[in-house]
Amino acid sequence: MAYRALTEQEAVEYVKGLPGLFTEGAELTSREIGDGNLNLVFDIQEPATGKKVIVKQALPFARVVGESWPLTIDRARIESEALRIQHKYVPDLVPEVYHFDQELALTVMENVGDHVIMRKGLIEGKRYPLFPKQIGRFLAQTLFYTSDLGAHPYDKKALVGTFINPELCKITEDLVFTDPYENAPTNDFNPLIRKEVEAIWNNKPLKLEIAKLKFDFLTRAEALLHGDLHTGSIFITESSLKAIDPEFAYYGPIGFDIGAVIANLLLNYAGQHGLQNDQGERDSYREYLLETVEDVWNEFVSQFVQLWHKQAKERSAHVEGLWQSYVKRLIQDTAGYAGCKILRRVIGLAGVADLNAIADAEKRAEAERLALAIGEALILGRNDIEESTDITDIVRNVTARYYQEATTV
Amino acid sequence: MAYRALTEQEAVEYVKGLPGLFTEGAELTSREIGDGNLNLVFDIQEPATGKKVIVKQALPFARVVGESWPLTIDRARIESEALRIQHKYVPDLVPEVYHFDQELALTVMENVGDHVIMRKGLIEGKRYPLFPKQIGRFLAQTLFYTSDLGAHPYDKKALVGTFINPELCKITEDLVFTDPYENAPTNDFNPLIRKEVEAIWNNKPLKLEIAKLKFDFLTRAEALLHGDLHTGSIFITESSLKAIDPEFAYYGPIGFDIGAVIANLLLNYAGQHGLQNDQGERDSYREYLLETVEDVWNEFVSQFVQLWHKQAKERSAHVEGLWQSYVKRLIQDTAGYAGCKILRRVIGLAGVADLNAIADAEKRAEAERLALAIGEALILGRNDIEESTDITDIVRNVTARYYQEATTV
Repeated sequence: MAYRALTEQEAVEYVKGLPGLFTEGAELTSREIGDGNLNLVFDIQEPATGKKVIVKQALPFARVVGESWPLTIDRARIESEALRIQHKYVPDLVPEVYHFDQELALTVMENVGDHVIMRKGLIEGKRYPLFPKQIGRFLAQTLFYTSDLGAHPYDKKALVGTFINPELCKITEDLVFTDPYENAPTNDFNPLIRKEVEAIWNNKPLKLEIAKLKFDFLTRAEALLHGDLHTGSIFITESSLKAIDPEFAYYGPIGFDIGAVIANLLLNYAGQHGLQNDQGERDSYREYLLETVEDVWNEFVSQFVQLWHKQAKERSAHVEGLWQSYVKRLIQDTAGYAGCKILRRVIGLAGVADLNAIADAEKRAEAERLALAIGEALILGRNDIEESTDITDIVRNVTARYYQEATTV
Repeated sequence: MAYRALTEQEAVEYVKGLPGLFTEGAELTSREIGDGNLNLVFDIQEPATGKKVIVKQALPFARVVGESWPLTIDRARIESEALRIQHKYVPDLVPEVYHFDQELALTVMENVGDHVIMRKGLIEGKRYPLFPKQIGRFLAQTLFYTSDLGAHPYDKKALVGTFINPELCKITEDLVFTDPYENAPTNDFNPLIRKEVEAIWNNKPLKLEIAKLKFDFLTRAEALLHGDLHTGSIFITESSLKAIDPEFAYYGPIGFDIGAVIANLLLNYAGQHGLQNDQGERDSYREYLLETVEDVWNEFVSQFVQLWHKQAKERSAHVEGLWQSYVKRLIQDTAGYAGCKILRRVIGLAGVADLNAIADAEKRAEAERLALAIGEALILGRNDIEESTDITDIVRNVTARYYQEATTV
């Protein structure tokens, strides 16, 4: 079937035509629940049995703040392939793909509609004690087994080819690594923080470090990344986690995925300035977030290193001292990428609700200034980082200085 | 036509069937001049006009020291594609490809038979004053324009896919970065240097640095490399240079190609110990080789940086300080990869005539020990290198120490 966007009813007919999902006479409901900016997402259910699937179809354009530009539907192939690979290593943490249709750019997959978007949960002040173990395992398993450590050299190289993803990488290259650090038309920030944003545009050491991180993003094919692992790509309940939407998947530096998780925890941390008025509650929730940052890294690294010792087929992986030096670079990359991802969410095209939900513009500006200070400190301080508490110490110090200055002004 | 190895006569028929090369009634001679271990190489000439071409056909196996193993003929596609791209940027320095036949794994190309293999020239003590400018330009142009600096991001990523070259990369991974540093069955070294080789197998800091360089080789897709740029892949006359045989081409770290050139100059430098008995001549030729090492880097870097300033389309390339930091890492990579390539030629499967031509085993062992000491010093000392004289200083110091110790023993 040649590509065309499906209606709710056509989506039903489509899944009925697939073997093994629903019986022939099934009565199905269909509801399009996507935001229509990038993809159609049909929530299809069979009330009689409670059985349900998601049908996700890529649209041949992206629409952001009114603008619309063409965007390859090949990203549906990338996403379904990435989901399949990730599902192989962490089946409980990734929706199962039942069917992929290349021409329609359409994936039929497990419906995880009983989960909520983690970003929403964090904004509501929810705590997810299992999250570090879950995401740490997701990161360790998916990144290890697709890297030169865990994959056969031929398989790894074939996967690099499968996941060449130029258009979506370009979005990251522009919106994460370039536009926010100059006066670019795509930027979209709170006018009240113009002074701080201009200071970043003029901060030469910072821009140099970001350019280095960008070149690593462009060149370092370490593992199959999710590529966009923010808290909006994580569906969660108290007991379960599902990482979704790997449209940006490609072979890149491992620290980029871990940094995305940490950045989004810290964006919420900064947002607490305006999301939570009770100082005691705010401090307690921030403490929870910082512990989570530490635990995410610690869980990742302990599982990753265990895999390294037990599963690495690459002979040179076992050379004495290599894993320590590798892991040290990883945490430094992680901090650097986390910093870029924080800055871009404040300055660049795509904001986050953790900040945007703060109704009062001045209060929001204060939270955004804190986020900028944290992002900058992570990027500039990353080469001294060796363990997760070095990351949270940076955040604590920036925060202390921030409130001190606010008091003394 | 399904794949089969051609005879001399069939090669003639083949080129006669191609448009634009020879006239219909042309009388052609054909001579197979390859060594038969990897490829058939037919030197086809038309005596009446002096017109000539090379027909190179990949064999579906590799034969080394009696052993034969299957090897993908896809390498012929890689080679012809790489030649075409390189020819686009430095047409005078790369043979022109007239025709490629995927099924026969066969390339018809410019015949550069009036050139000699540079390794042979160096062994004979020839000097090539234009060489640094030529190879510096080859390196700067081909590496810059295929990197994220000089290529459109979509084009670069497409090229990464075109040049996925797992089987030939695996040969490098094993024979350059792994086997020589452990007691592997592929190793093939002079029994007289067993003590020094075992010292390398037990040198943990050295093995750690080599493993890091290997992981960079596995992951850092910086530019389209020639991939095997030793002095046997360089055809030369006093006025002309042609870089041939890019079967190992893939996207990797830029320093790997530059390091290959420098390694092979230094292998000849070490070989002079046995190749040249007159000490004055030897010292003078070595001085020439070290100047050449410096000039190769200096020519490369000055052209590369000039291209960076004038031609880099990548916006972030122009961030203050980036090119300096990039170039500093490049020379350190260059030294590291040069070191690995020196060590592997002494210890590993494939030796070089610069050393193997020394008939006396003890004399050859002495030259090999010097080569090992140079390779090791480059790898371990690379992080302090900032300019080309830092490389040659390392070589000079190792050499001085070497002859001093030889005298005092």
